[in-house]
Amino acid sequence: MSDAPQAQVKATSNGIPVPSFDLPLPDRPDIITANVQKLTELTPNPRHRFIFKALLKHLHQFVNETRRVYYLLNLQFSTDATTIPSLTTDEWMAAIDFLTRIGQKCTPLRQETILLSDVLGVSALVDSINNPIAGGATENSVLGPFFTEDAADVNFGESIASEGKGDYMYVEGRILTTDGQPIPNAVIETWETDADGFYDTQYADRSHPDCRGRLRSDDDGKFGYRAVVPVAYPIPGDGPVGELLLLLGRHNMRPNHLHMMVEAPGFHKLVTAFYPDGCDYLRSDCVFGVKKSLVVNLKDIVDDEEARKRGFPHGDSFKLLQYDIVLLTEDQSAAMRAGIEEERYTISDIIKSTKS
Amino acid sequence: MSDAPQAQVKATSNGIPVPSFDLPLPDRPDIITANVQKLTELTPNPRHRFIFKALLKHLHQFVNETRRVYYLLNLQFSTDATTIPSLTTDEWMAAIDFLTRIGQKCTPLRQETILLSDVLGVSALVDSINNPIAGGATENSVLGPFFTEDAADVNFGESIASEGKGDYMYVEGRILTTDGQPIPNAVIETWETDADGFYDTQYADRSHPDCRGRLRSDDDGKFGYRAVVPVAYPIPGDGPVGELLLLLGRHNMRPNHLHMMVEAPGFHKLVTAFYPDGCDYLRSDCVFGVKKSLVVNLKDIVDDEEARKRGFPHGDSFKLLQYDIVLLTEDQSAAMRAGIEEERYTISDIIKSTKS
Repeated sequence: MSDAPQAQVKATSNGIPVPSFDLPLPDRPDIITANVQKLTELTPNPRHRFIFKALLKHLHQFVNETRRVYYLLNLQFSTDATTIPSLTTDEWMAAIDFLTRIGQKCTPLRQETILLSDVLGVSALVDSINNPIAGGATENSVLGPFFTEDAADVNFGESIASEGKGDYMYVEGRILTTDGQPIPNAVIETWETDADGFYDTQYADRSHPDCRGRLRSDDDGKFGYRAVVPVAYPIPGDGPVGELLLLLGRHNMRPNHLHMMVEAPGFHKLVTAFYPDGCDYLRSDCVFGVKKSLVVNLKDIVDDEEARKRGFPHGDSFKLLQYDIVLLTEDQSAAMRAGIEEERYTISDIIKSTKS
Repeated sequence: MSDAPQAQVKATSNGIPVPSFDLPLPDRPDIITANVQKLTELTPNPRHRFIFKALLKHLHQFVNETRRVYYLLNLQFSTDATTIPSLTTDEWMAAIDFLTRIGQKCTPLRQETILLSDVLGVSALVDSINNPIAGGATENSVLGPFFTEDAADVNFGESIASEGKGDYMYVEGRILTTDGQPIPNAVIETWETDADGFYDTQYADRSHPDCRGRLRSDDDGKFGYRAVVPVAYPIPGDGPVGELLLLLGRHNMRPNHLHMMVEAPGFHKLVTAFYPDGCDYLRSDCVFGVKKSLVVNLKDIVDDEEARKRGFPHGDSFKLLQYDIVLLTEDQSAAMRAGIEEERYTISDIIKSTKS
């Protein structure tokens, strides 16, 4: 009835026709899953098609397996297995509500979806896969949400932290190729918490960048700057991710660390962080960022002269962080990723995979 | 330095201690996955623990498998398999951005997260698992987002649609037990699109409910009401889910259908819909809602007297939808779910599962 008073247009489709193949009506759970997979064959871009087929397979397997494995597990505890519920509609609606609140917590300054990916270990996993271990080169660690573009330029030996922000620490080392050759003029971004466990951006009254700076390596590849000893801190706990960690019985702390991001023309960009040894949270970092090679020993330097030589104003004792950073060239990095792929998947893997 | 001018409190944890067990540092992808699983053992509630272990297993497998299977697939097409990228950081960031936008599209009147679950077949899968096929009883279909609480009460034979909203349809049947006994006084909520493919709530100027009503079965379990023939319509295409369907090369249409929700004390609540046969979108419903037993044949009645008897004002021809709805008791429904679980998992399944 096109004369219905309120209607102005007929509802129309997105212009994509019905599939050319026949699908059975999805009367049972397994038909639903098969139809979703079959429809995903329509995805024009082969990479998208592949990724969505894998995603949907595991999403549907999760729903199905929740029921099955729970039932199986229960066999160990009870013979009354018939009372075990499937993943219930209410449970799924709770998941829908949780995901909705994740998106709604995000603002230009707060990325709760990344935080979710972080605490579930997916950020670290993706990072780890994309930056495989490379003999001698410095390893990656998670970027985190606290990098900013506005750090001040800092000269060799200067401080990235204003006075009073924490215990003195001096950071020094060289930027090198895998052959041990110096890389001059590499750009080093570095940032950290103050002694209270906050980044400058977490203060509502932030007037200028602090506890962060931008340096360049010298002709010998050397860098050196004053900083403060960072401290362990919690990831934001006032959103759905905070609720999730409470539900999972997990603390929300990151071990203390100093971030560094190093770029030089022709070299693969390095995003990493250094974790002083001895922190309680080192082995249970809530975002899975710590790698063995990134755990560092802070030396206690109790020597007035050494302190004054490094520019600490009161000549107090300080901690010393020494680390030589080794960058892969872009070519080395690409070859490394390709090599890891090849090595992991031998013919027997391939045969096994195509059978399962 | 507690006297830092801006700092008022030290950052503190959520109060949960570090785990009592040791975890290796997550130097490799497989250690990250293992650590996430081990940490999830800390979840206090056993049901949550179980669900999250299954979820994390499949989430991590998805990330890993994307790499591997893509590599394997490519073997069929090229010998230069080493150039195939893993799931890249950029691809994962695109997923993060997509999920963020899903949550941010939601309002009290628009639930984009449910829509996402719908088009990925997960809503239908969860519904199907929770409401298994039961010999003779009417099957479930997805609720959808258009049910409202404010439908008007409608007496036997009255219309749920105001004049001019579409082609005439009469709906009649009985509400029965699985033994064929009538269920009197069952509450029936029913709702549908008008002839333009819109629910009343989709009109900005909606002043009263239309194309929806609330009825009760009579002493013989009978119900009957006037309605209009619903038409196929697209799910909302102006959000991230609309983008996703374009990327997947899938249309966004649902076949035309009439919703019904039936409740009676002691009986399992039925949420279902009836799908007139012949619709182009019946076999590719974008939310996987159609079941064979819910596809109905609309009879063409071209008979002035029959039309007038059913209250159609002009005595025009009309379509007739006849369907007897069979409800399970709560006990039957519970037994059905339990029975299906038991039947599906035989000893050989159990052995297979514990091996894999």
